[in-house]
Amino acid sequence: MKVTIIGIGLIGGSIAISLKENGFADHIIGVDRSQENLDKAVRRRLIDEDLSFEKGVAAADVIIISTPVDTLIDLVPKVLDLIKPEQTVLDVGSTKAPILKAIENHPNRKSFVATHPMAGTEFSGPEAAIPNLFENKCTVICDGEGSSKSAVITVKELYESMNMSIIRMNSVDHDVHAAYVSHISHLSSFALALTVLEKEKNEKAIFQLASGGFSSTVRLAKSSAAMWTPIFSQNRDNVLDVLDEHINSLAKFRTLLIKKDFNKISELIEEANRIRKILK
Amino acid sequence: MKVTIIGIGLIGGSIAISLKENGFADHIIGVDRSQENLDKAVRRRLIDEDLSFEKGVAAADVIIISTPVDTLIDLVPKVLDLIKPEQTVLDVGSTKAPILKAIENHPNRKSFVATHPMAGTEFSGPEAAIPNLFENKCTVICDGEGSSKSAVITVKELYESMNMSIIRMNSVDHDVHAAYVSHISHLSSFALALTVLEKEKNEKAIFQLASGGFSSTVRLAKSSAAMWTPIFSQNRDNVLDVLDEHINSLAKFRTLLIKKDFNKISELIEEANRIRKILK
Repeated sequence: MKVTIIGIGLIGGSIAISLKENGFADHIIGVDRSQENLDKAVRRRLIDEDLSFEKGVAAADVIIISTPVDTLIDLVPKVLDLIKPEQTVLDVGSTKAPILKAIENHPNRKSFVATHPMAGTEFSGPEAAIPNLFENKCTVICDGEGSSKSAVITVKELYESMNMSIIRMNSVDHDVHAAYVSHISHLSSFALALTVLEKEKNEKAIFQLASGGFSSTVRLAKSSAAMWTPIFSQNRDNVLDVLDEHINSLAKFRTLLIKKDFNKISELIEEANRIRKILK
Repeated sequence: MKVTIIGIGLIGGSIAISLKENGFADHIIGVDRSQENLDKAVRRRLIDEDLSFEKGVAAADVIIISTPVDTLIDLVPKVLDLIKPEQTVLDVGSTKAPILKAIENHPNRKSFVATHPMAGTEFSGPEAAIPNLFENKCTVICDGEGSSKSAVITVKELYESMNMSIIRMNSVDHDVHAAYVSHISHLSSFALALTVLEKEKNEKAIFQLASGGFSSTVRLAKSSAAMWTPIFSQNRDNVLDVLDEHINSLAKFRTLLIKKDFNKISELIEEANRIRKILK
């Protein structure tokens, strides 16, 4: 199978490693507007060759678009304009309703499958690509009923080759849930980093105190603005709802601290502990 | 050296493993109000024997008190009542001003060293004790000028044997900084867990979507109420200040989302990214 990956960063590059290793792809073509990224990807052997957008799209059985979600809105229709019926196109963006809306009336809509492989790290670029990023994680396929059966089968085989499980969901529900289990975590980390950086501006020594707990809650604050600003933009309404709820949760603790109601604080912590059952 | 550890949980148990492995202690005595914990600690060979409070205090060169911070306030003076001049006592609690206030006029104050080894996990109890928890981390010694030189030297040797670096700081500053680099992270995780649990109450399937990013920001929400409620209680004023600033940071993002000012959101994310320089 020939696979073209448009956008060779953390996600595109990691998919490239997996598909080559597991044999799903025998030839991987990279397309990226940054020649520097393409050169890095060739040097790291993430891709077999780099081609122009048009040639890359023409040469592949499967085209994976792994750019920031704002760029997706432009690129997916352009790719669909160019393809032949036997080709399959998928995106891997973190928001799903906007891209599906953008191509709902495209004549080649059926060749497109909207997906969200739920994995990532706080790093970006082809140098951040790693093997097994997706191993045993989950991919969401959204609004699959708008895609042809054969396109969905190809995409399922692609993700199953990477040892991922597949969930089907409508795109509107996906975007609500993504706001809860992913987007708010990032927003919270960015805000926490800002809070602490602001305070500790003139007191560098203090970061020696930052232990594992701090690192883990602000890890995501290293994530790139180029990826996350478009996600917050496209999923603005859901993110705002969840952010309001999160501020309310914090305000609950605030009120209890003011009242010195530590019994109730203890109860809230025990409630929060129920997250144990959910996280491994 | 004979060491008695009062409170054989995650921290006490992990210290026991380190001090035995590196040879600082040739005999470790466990004291705990839970006989079940002591039995577990013996079975796991964290301690050589368990003794009653009085016998445990009498038998050791060094006495480490590693209980939740509310219990510390009672226990440290009781231990100081019992010791002879050649014995050294230290605590390892996450707040420092309250315990130092509690013993400031104790006749044996000079035998006590207030410390905070900055390491931990979200788990608790002797079963959570692990080797190398403290390796290459940092310990704070607070208000060391109130301790005798020989007590400080013993405590420094103890932590250095565990490959920890040592910072000296006054207890009031410590508690402010701990609010920023540790306590607010926990509060934020508890609140985030509550936000998501509330929403996803009836939609269990959705947690399959929770990826690495989510797990890492809410990991601390598994932390125990028995440990954290007393920390929030003792460090209430500092935690409230930092919580207000954190809610303000989130409110900044909220306002920008409402205004759809994504350029400014992108700038804020880039500002938050500066945390990269601080975290390894």
